[in-house]
Amino acid sequence: MALDAQKEAEIDALRAESQETRRATVPALEALLYKPLPVLDHGFIRVIDYMGDDPGIVQAARVSYGRGTKQVSNDKALINYLMRRHHTSPFEMCEIKLHVKLPIFVARQWIRHRTANVNEYSARYSVLDREFYVPDRKFMKLMQVERQQQSNQAGLFGALDAATPEHTAQQSTTNKQGREAVLESEAAAQVLRNIKRVSESSFTAYEKLLGEDGEGGVEGFGIARELARMVLPLNTYTQWYWKIDLHNLLHFTRLRADGHAQYEIRAYADRLIEILQAWVPLTYAAFANYRKDAAVLSSNAQELLRRHLAGDTNVTFSDVGMTKREWLELVTLFPALDKTANT
Amino acid sequence: MALDAQKEAEIDALRAESQETRRATVPALEALLYKPLPVLDHGFIRVIDYMGDDPGIVQAARVSYGRGTKQVSNDKALINYLMRRHHTSPFEMCEIKLHVKLPIFVARQWIRHRTANVNEYSARYSVLDREFYVPDRKFMKLMQVERQQQSNQAGLFGALDAATPEHTAQQSTTNKQGREAVLESEAAAQVLRNIKRVSESSFTAYEKLLGEDGEGGVEGFGIARELARMVLPLNTYTQWYWKIDLHNLLHFTRLRADGHAQYEIRAYADRLIEILQAWVPLTYAAFANYRKDAAVLSSNAQELLRRHLAGDTNVTFSDVGMTKREWLELVTLFPALDKTANT
Amino acid sequence: MALDAQKEAEIDALRAESQETRRATVPALEALLYKPLPVLDHGFIRVIDYMGDDPGIVQAARVSYGRGTKQVSNDKALINYLMRRHHTSPFEMCEIKLHVKLPIFVARQWIRHRTANVNEYSARYSVLDREFYVPDRKFMKLMQVERQQQSNQAGLFGALDAATPEHTAQQSTTNKQGREAVLESEAAAQVLRNIKRVSESSFTAYEKLLGEDGEGGVEGFGIARELARMVLPLNTYTQWYWKIDLHNLLHFTRLRADGHAQYEIRAYADRLIEILQAWVPLTYAAFANYRKDAAVLSSNAQELLRRHLAGDTNVTFSDVGMTKREWLELVTLFPALDKTANT
Amino acid sequence: MALDAQKEAEIDALRAESQETRRATVPALEALLYKPLPVLDHGFIRVIDYMGDDPGIVQAARVSYGRGTKQVSNDKALINYLMRRHHTSPFEMCEIKLHVKLPIFVARQWIRHRTANVNEYSARYSVLDREFYVPDRKFMKLMQVERQQQSNQAGLFGALDAATPEHTAQQSTTNKQGREAVLESEAAAQVLRNIKRVSESSFTAYEKLLGEDGEGGVEGFGIARELARMVLPLNTYTQWYWKIDLHNLLHFTRLRADGHAQYEIRAYADRLIEILQAWVPLTYAAFANYRKDAAVLSSNAQELLRRHLAGDTNVTFSDVGMTKREWLELVTLFPALDKTANT
Repeated sequence: MALDAQKEAEIDALRAESQETRRATVPALEALLYKPLPVLDHGFIRVIDYMGDDPGIVQAARVSYGRGTKQVSNDKALINYLMRRHHTSPFEMCEIKLHVKLPIFVARQWIRHRTANVNEYSARYSVLDREFYVPDRKFMKLMQVERQQQSNQAGLFGALDAATPEHTAQQSTTNKQGREAVLESEAAAQVLRNIKRVSESSFTAYEKLLGEDGEGGVEGFGIARELARMVLPLNTYTQWYWKIDLHNLLHFTRLRADGHAQYEIRAYADRLIEILQAWVPLTYAAFANYRKDAAVLSSNAQELLRRHLAGDTNVTFSDVGMTKREWLELVTLFPALDKTANT
Repeated sequence: MALDAQKEAEIDALRAESQETRRATVPALEALLYKPLPVLDHGFIRVIDYMGDDPGIVQAARVSYGRGTKQVSNDKALINYLMRRHHTSPFEMCEIKLHVKLPIFVARQWIRHRTANVNEYSARYSVLDREFYVPDRKFMKLMQVERQQQSNQAGLFGALDAATPEHTAQQSTTNKQGREAVLESEAAAQVLRNIKRVSESSFTAYEKLLGEDGEGGVEGFGIARELARMVLPLNTYTQWYWKIDLHNLLHFTRLRADGHAQYEIRAYADRLIEILQAWVPLTYAAFANYRKDAAVLSSNAQELLRRHLAGDTNVTFSDVGMTKREWLELVTLFPALDKTANT
Repeated sequence: MALDAQKEAEIDALRAESQETRRATVPALEALLYKPLPVLDHGFIRVIDYMGDDPGIVQAARVSYGRGTKQVSNDKALINYLMRRHHTSPFEMCEIKLHVKLPIFVARQWIRHRTANVNEYSARYSVLDREFYVPDRKFMKLMQVERQQQSNQAGLFGALDAATPEHTAQQSTTNKQGREAVLESEAAAQVLRNIKRVSESSFTAYEKLLGEDGEGGVEGFGIARELARMVLPLNTYTQWYWKIDLHNLLHFTRLRADGHAQYEIRAYADRLIEILQAWVPLTYAAFANYRKDAAVLSSNAQELLRRHLAGDTNVTFSDVGMTKREWLELVTLFPALDKTANT
Repeated sequence: MALDAQKEAEIDALRAESQETRRATVPALEALLYKPLPVLDHGFIRVIDYMGDDPGIVQAARVSYGRGTKQVSNDKALINYLMRRHHTSPFEMCEIKLHVKLPIFVARQWIRHRTANVNEYSARYSVLDREFYVPDRKFMKLMQVERQQQSNQAGLFGALDAATPEHTAQQSTTNKQGREAVLESEAAAQVLRNIKRVSESSFTAYEKLLGEDGEGGVEGFGIARELARMVLPLNTYTQWYWKIDLHNLLHFTRLRADGHAQYEIRAYADRLIEILQAWVPLTYAAFANYRKDAAVLSSNAQELLRRHLAGDTNVTFSDVGMTKREWLELVTLFPALDKTANT
């Protein structure tokens, strides 16, 4: 990611300014303000504005006249309590506004979160820059592993077949090794060349349809921007202003920093986590412990664990109505269970 | 509205603090920050925090790297354009957080606006102060007029009768005078005494159920706060933190500052307008012109007006499918139409 | 709850009608349609309309042309999968519309859920019936227990004191017994008499302000309905049409059927569960197992459990950063842990 | 749009089924149920399910026990009243579920409406069909006209220049003619050939990346579906289940059937209007008169009109603070004003 000189000057000008305010202010987040934090090959996240901080959450929870409690330890205990007991509304009292540059296929996943405000750069009214995403070669292996996980779900969402999820999961485990091997060699480079080539040629077609550059010689058609854009590929970069409250940002982060999320959106979620840690450290810590890194144990799984802890190590997952897949996830969480594993 | 010394001290402490920030800052709104702006007899609105300003709306609309345009005249033209053409998302990019104290029956109207975040002071966990709303005598006449307007609608929402809205409207116009006359004299004072008396006795019952003061002699039952509160009247004051984006705040204000809204919530809407004028003067002016004080002309009404302007002053409201009530509203807007009025 | 003859006739007429439809239809829910299911002393829930069923969720998840899968076992496996992995959008594809009659203080908790559509009977335009909620005597003991739990939280939300949640929790455990004893005897009856008396006298004041009955002798003031209502107590019954999608209804049910919710709203949540079981039995079963009766284990709690399962039964809650309250909740879930308990 | 035999059979099977229901049923909409209504070259809208009807809106507005009023004329009057006075919540009580197939660039505009539920066919887990949108030649001229209107706004949203909206509007009026002339001849055909060619070659690249067909000879890379899709163009067709309440559907229709909306999404909005007319004819008529075809007159425009109607035909748009663009729009509405036009 590299900005042109004018944009850099505009950002520098913003960062040089400073005003007096009576509002709650977070120095660690002020330090990040307006700076583009790079993501993927041409993307970024910029923090444009924010409202509220950790003590402000306490203040809202208590509907108080003054500022939070006097002691950080009290703030921390209350924030932990609110997070643990799903009192979400105080976390909705903080808000953040970001400028994000991201590939369109990532933007399409992102926008599924409806509880946010969005202003996207308009390809209807403006010409898009010739910028598109090409995966980094070192992630290609990782992506192959994920491909298998996803193909398990194809049946469910696309054309549900007779196979149970458990069954297809095993299949993919088997042939995963082979594919990885292939891709680590020459194939990865070929894939990247293909992506680049087709993206370049789509952009060339876009520019010809627009005919914007047609003045100097290149012939162009001059059709409407809103129409010309239809040939652009889904890895074209777009950008938007995106504003969201803290509760919903945490929820977004939990879903998108998750191992099941596509690598590209996870890269953005990881940046969001850095921003959260600078902005609301107490809340982020509570979120990590009680939500992001928490495990949801189904009623059935509790039963199995209860019997194990009480000494009944012969109980099997099917005894309590769990599927094998659920059992495997539970064993990942508590490896000691494996000693007594069973199919 | 009078706060106790401790609350005043907490507010003063907040107002005395000042921090450096790189964020957009609005001096006129900073001047109001944390101060309780009185509403009704014991209510208030306090601005606790805000995010964004007029240039920030332009910045979001343009998804720009720097701050808005260089000239206020450009900002103003663009904001007018966005407002006029219903481009609402840039206005969603500003946010405000308020601390509001208000009677419960007003709170129940207020909460109908769902696109906001709320943290209410909990009568489940806390004991409410002995504070309730009693109308001001000088508004009693006004309220009588409104009573008639509302009773027109009773049939619609309660038990729809054969009468058309137009019909009942006329009825109420007739007997309005009589009732006003009555209420201006002794009756108003009696009404207020009644409201006070029954409110006082409900609060006494509440306190007895709680038994919180029971230590020193007054016998109390010590039942749960969440239960005791059920005898409190709807004019009891509650309070909450309320956070909303600018677009939705404008929408709220338009509905609640309207002549059809109940007087008590209008009093709050009027304060919100003062806050809006301090915060985003360009946006508020655009909103007043294109939305709040704008008129929506139905297709039928346009047809009538079109024919009038073309010289056909004999056209009647029923010719174009308008109801009489719609015609009367149109005449209020354009009194010159009345010359050629017809029933 | 008893309806007058006219309302019963209207309901009977609706239930007698029947139409042909190509839409997905659920016989078990059709059987309940329009019938008031009693809740509390005068409240009810009536199912007015619904859209979608279990196979419809599968159909939406697969964006399919036909109806779900052919086999119920496949539908069940997919619904379990969607619930477990938090794929919420297919559950949003079902919708239900209810007519609910409920005390105002319950309505105020209920309305906090914003992702629903509401049409409330208007006390601005209509006169409310003389109906108010009085708790059932057999629940008074239960309520006392809850009162203690709630008072722990008073400090947090009202006026946070030095006491930690754990500390006040112990206090209340101590003096709980005493209070219960008192209330089981004569006190409960007195409390109920008090609630009845003050509610009756508030309704009398309301009617006098309205003057609606003034014709026959009782003197009344004839003030606006929107004003007169302000003296009504919070246990007055109101009613509304309430429409919500299945995902949000499950979420509502989880929060409101929870042991921490106030008894009165739990009574409604229990009815909602009966409706859910009739409407979408597969979804409800998945919800119960993976959500409602599931346990969220914090990262810290997982660490403790992991070490326990691996044989390290000396690990204490403070070793892994848990609070005592969290530890006590974990022991409730897994009583075998208690053998090795520690403070 | 042509479906394969299996899909047609699934749809026929659904249409052949019929159940008894006590729910409100709309025969005109039942007739459309499940049928794909064609839009653009490969798209469609299918009505999958619905809830509520015109009388149901009345029923909700009155929070009634029985079904609406007895007479259609009363229902109509009340629905008109609700629409005119912006009582939106009764319209939220109806819901509709649609299956929509649409180009991705249209889907990206569509999804901006957040108050709806969406389940999109997943290109992460499934392989997309080789189907993309190519504009119809007869719309190319129309599109050219629109291109000019949109370029006026480029400055505002992209890179705001010194020009006022009025100024650029004039510019485009000037060179519009020339461009149209060009496009009507051979150019249109060339544009379409270009769009087809680049779309075809992007799909070929997609298939090669996937390697799905690689078995029989065509070499493929076998990379993850979630990755391969990134080279697909924005005119690729996607599909989703989309569920929305009637109030928000009307709002969507108003914005997207508007002359300022892009042609492609307008084509879908026009189909939605047909569906609305079949489903809720009284509501649609009220919506057309009071909302869709209504005009919003700014405070300034009212002033101008008021003075005109009172005989002061010398008043100019700048006298009342209107821009020239606003004046031109007003003249379009009321051509008689033009007699006295002024610049």
